[in-house]
Amino acid sequence: MIRLSADGAAASIERAVAVECPVAIEVDGFGYAVMMMTPERLEDFATGFLLTERLVDVPGDILAIEPFAADTGWIVRVTLAAHLRGRMHDRIRHRTSDTSCGLCGLSGLEQIARPVTKRPPRPKASTETLFATLGTVRAHQPLNARTGAVHAAIACDAMGAVLTAAEDVGRHNALDKLVGMLARDTALHADFILVTSRISYEMVDKALVTGIGLLIGISAPTSLAIAHARAHDLTLIALARSDAMLVAHDPHGCFA
Amino acid sequence: MIRLSADGAAASIERAVAVECPVAIEVDGFGYAVMMMTPERLEDFATGFLLTERLVDVPGDILAIEPFAADTGWIVRVTLAAHLRGRMHDRIRHRTSDTSCGLCGLSGLEQIARPVTKRPPRPKASTETLFATLGTVRAHQPLNARTGAVHAAIACDAMGAVLTAAEDVGRHNALDKLVGMLARDTALHADFILVTSRISYEMVDKALVTGIGLLIGISAPTSLAIAHARAHDLTLIALARSDAMLVAHDPHGCFA
Repeated sequence: MIRLSADGAAASIERAVAVECPVAIEVDGFGYAVMMMTPERLEDFATGFLLTERLVDVPGDILAIEPFAADTGWIVRVTLAAHLRGRMHDRIRHRTSDTSCGLCGLSGLEQIARPVTKRPPRPKASTETLFATLGTVRAHQPLNARTGAVHAAIACDAMGAVLTAAEDVGRHNALDKLVGMLARDTALHADFILVTSRISYEMVDKALVTGIGLLIGISAPTSLAIAHARAHDLTLIALARSDAMLVAHDPHGCFA
Repeated sequence: MIRLSADGAAASIERAVAVECPVAIEVDGFGYAVMMMTPERLEDFATGFLLTERLVDVPGDILAIEPFAADTGWIVRVTLAAHLRGRMHDRIRHRTSDTSCGLCGLSGLEQIARPVTKRPPRPKASTETLFATLGTVRAHQPLNARTGAVHAAIACDAMGAVLTAAEDVGRHNALDKLVGMLARDTALHADFILVTSRISYEMVDKALVTGIGLLIGISAPTSLAIAHARAHDLTLIALARSDAMLVAHDPHGCFA
């Protein structure tokens, strides 16, 4: 690649680039989704993705996860417990049979809201812990250090110790990987999740699946992200920087 | 909201938040997709989205675009020219009937690659123009100025004059809005498109639909974004900052 400077100089440079490729998720033989993502930790990703899609309720609902490298990307073949096959088929059928009559259009929108079964607990980490943790995050982003512009999702305990971390070119994928890692390793007891991205509705929704009490994002929240956190009592902190952070929702009065 | 400072102080503040809501796209009575987005310029968005999805070839293929406000979001009803209905039905059918036999999984991946019919021209803007344009971009991001963390896609002529700009909580949506604006106003002759985000495969793919010659992004490119730009001779510049920018692909030798 060529580095162009504002003074007009051009220099040839080497630069590592984050790998992005299509990953097809096949559930019980049906193509369910194709994601453009960083093809690492595919078992964790598939587990987290199926959990956040509410296709499964617990990791044990997944009987097998088999990633295969293809010419143009990866295929991850998932086998679900027999009692869940109807749910997946219903989802696929619903996705395509919507016809418009006003009502159906509305039902298409309402489908967006997926059940939240876990009640987020009161977070235990202190303000000091959160600011201290922010300073340690970079050390857990090796891929980003090499390539730049890769998102991370990081799970910490109440003292701010990093339990596990995931990176991906997509912020949703990074969080799905982390959701899968937390679900598969029941020895990990996270107090909060930190994401290096903006906080949209889907990021809050995925965090709610984990059952943690606090989601922190380095960038801004959207209106629907705040509304979703409020609806389910998830403590939400945004724009977390070294000098200040913004408490967007604090149902337990931890940061008042 | 509460602003927590690193010194322990907490202060109540008012802060504008970017609106995000579900927007359902109905094509000829069928629910095609639901996007979480900033519900502005919905006609431009629907036009750009249908173009980049390759459901239509030109804006004239769309007979009507009717946005309706619903309780929980928006529904945009699109009517296509009769000769295109088969294409939409094929797409929906294909999306759900994939069964896994290795081959089908692969075809699911190959489906990702969509036809590119326009050959990107040699860009005309000079290096000086690009650096000068970067300095003017903020003035075209009013929503971002109020709320932060909103992406923009901006079309400029060869002298760096901003022709039109779109903002959205999602980078893909911002670019789809811009694609629609450029397609609907044939008086706009853009030389390059600037996006305030990372450059992934899909961003390159959407830019290719417009027929412009140069895509510039403020953040890093992914591996597949560079490969897609190379495959179709799109000039690609990434990590565009005030002091330097990175030429990731330069098929016409404009920036050598």
